Amino acid sequence: MRIAIIGYGGVGRALVELLVNKKEELKEIGLQVIYVIGSKGGIYNPEGIDLASLVEFSRDERDITKYPNGASAEVTFHKILENKDVDLVIELTPTNKETGEPGMTHIIKSLEKGFHVATANKGPILLNYKKLREIAIENNVQLCIGCTSGGALPTINGGIMDMAGSNVLSIEGVLNGTTNYIIKEMEDGHVSYDEALKKAQQMGIAETDPSLDVEGWDTASKLLIITNVIMKEEKTLKDISVAGITQLTKEDIIKAKEEGKKFKLVGRSIRKDHTLEMSVKLEKLEKDHPLYGVDGKNKGVRYTSDTLGDLTMIGGASGVTPAAASILRDLINIHRGYKF
Amino acid sequence: MRIAIIGYGGVGRALVELLVNKKEELKEIGLQVIYVIGSKGGIYNPEGIDLASLVEFSRDERDITKYPNGASAEVTFHKILENKDVDLVIELTPTNKETGEPGMTHIIKSLEKGFHVATANKGPILLNYKKLREIAIENNVQLCIGCTSGGALPTINGGIMDMAGSNVLSIEGVLNGTTNYIIKEMEDGHVSYDEALKKAQQMGIAETDPSLDVEGWDTASKLLIITNVIMKEEKTLKDISVAGITQLTKEDIIKAKEEGKKFKLVGRSIRKDHTLEMSVKLEKLEKDHPLYGVDGKNKGVRYTSDTLGDLTMIGGASGVTPAAASILRDLINIHRGYKF
Repeated sequence: MRIAIIGYGGVGRALVELLVNKKEELKEIGLQVIYVIGSKGGIYNPEGIDLASLVEFSRDERDITKYPNGASAEVTFHKILENKDVDLVIELTPTNKETGEPGMTHIIKSLEKGFHVATANKGPILLNYKKLREIAIENNVQLCIGCTSGGALPTINGGIMDMAGSNVLSIEGVLNGTTNYIIKEMEDGHVSYDEALKKAQQMGIAETDPSLDVEGWDTASKLLIITNVIMKEEKTLKDISVAGITQLTKEDIIKAKEEGKKFKLVGRSIRKDHTLEMSVKLEKLEKDHPLYGVDGKNKGVRYTSDTLGDLTMIGGASGVTPAAASILRDLINIHRGYKF
Repeated sequence: MRIAIIGYGGVGRALVELLVNKKEELKEIGLQVIYVIGSKGGIYNPEGIDLASLVEFSRDERDITKYPNGASAEVTFHKILENKDVDLVIELTPTNKETGEPGMTHIIKSLEKGFHVATANKGPILLNYKKLREIAIENNVQLCIGCTSGGALPTINGGIMDMAGSNVLSIEGVLNGTTNYIIKEMEDGHVSYDEALKKAQQMGIAETDPSLDVEGWDTASKLLIITNVIMKEEKTLKDISVAGITQLTKEDIIKAKEEGKKFKLVGRSIRKDHTLEMSVKLEKLEKDHPLYGVDGKNKGVRYTSDTLGDLTMIGGASGVTPAAASILRDLINIHRGYKF
């Protein structure tokens, strides 16, 4: 399988490192990474780039056009389209949730040329999943997006492969590690929301501008992707009633604790008659709710179905290596012939 | 996809009913069941058996050789081998854990003829999974066994598809609904083991001879299958240290409750240095253990891995319909091209 990696940031570097570390195990697949493309140009080696040396090189140097072997400012995405010499494009450029670019163009053109695509890029998937999937089907290739909605937690696999043949009737998820960490801090440390947020920021878990997380939009984005993919819907963010955790008080937490309950920021899609209700909001979960134990940076999702009962999945380590591992999972499942 | 169903007991009948109920959704797959074979003979219709009429017929009559259209004592497994006119054999005959027969022969011969196999039959898988898998690979067909180790709970999918590309380092599972129900009864009703067992028997959850469940052997069987498949091992039941729940007292339960813990019958496979330790025993789980909330008839499994973190899966309705739905899941995943 000949591969192009577009976008050489944290996940891209972690993926290259993972491919080096798993070299022996991956031998049977016959992987060759022949392009690695960054923002200023990239590396092209039709015989397969020496990834171990690239990892070594990347320790001190971020500009891959300085890589000694096969690097050039001319090696851009267009080179791949011209050469048509890959089986799979891994799209890892930075997300733009307004236009989806440049990922959107990369994904569309790749699918049209008959390349499989695996991506961690939320923007194009949020904006245009249905269209992208149609292009993939027309061109008889796979579009894998598991990394965009939970990373290592296999939300998409769970809904497509594990629930195959059943109708998913509802989706519930604790999908944002940052807010879940903040809530846990408030529970354990008996501190206010502001204090817990500060600690999360100091630890690098929350961003300086935490609004996407704490106001519920990250959860909403993931819920939207999962819902559109698994329930075959065409919803947009506007269809979701979104509230975050910023109003949560120490007193709320203490009261919930006394009742034996826990607050979670829950994203929920549920079929009611002929409509689909979608929300992101704080919910007090009872001890016997399967997502009750999803604490700290953990994530979890629960599907209910007509014939396979409930399935709750909890876990999914956070960080660039698990994200890269979720791309590798897609790659292997494509190799194993799965039609998503 | 042309299908033979061998074994027309509870799961077989539930599967036929499911295929009737899901007829519209399954249209794109183009399913045709051309054999349904019971213990005294079967039904053969190369144009596809009218499943709706079979469901109707089966309401009052268990002997399918009396079915008015295409039934005969001559329609046995050998007919399928002679005619070679199916793509998939669904093996649902009663389990024999000593010899694996007749399922073992059905599975081997089917794979050798180039038919995919999906089975709910634990016996052959417990005794001979590795050999069977080799035969499947040699003949370029799929052998799907998800139903043998958790039914609707996708333990095998989880380990193979959802953890693809990672190494599973440990497996922990609450895999037996009967014992889990008994423990929950003891917790909720403050009753003794004997009383809880009696109630489970009255409700049809525990069998008259409950030893397979309560002495841990059902859990051990499932753990063995999951471990051999996912960790690529060749263990046997003798490699597992097995203890059940029969010694559990009301006092143990009360004490655990005071500590905020719960007893679960846990099957566990864990790599330590170069050995694999396998056990089935009662464990007191802390509140934050992901399997803590697996109550009553529910089941759960947790995998830890090198690169994808932990994955806990909880759920999986019990009964013949969810078991049939797990066979349908396998069928669809085979249809989607997955190489297991």
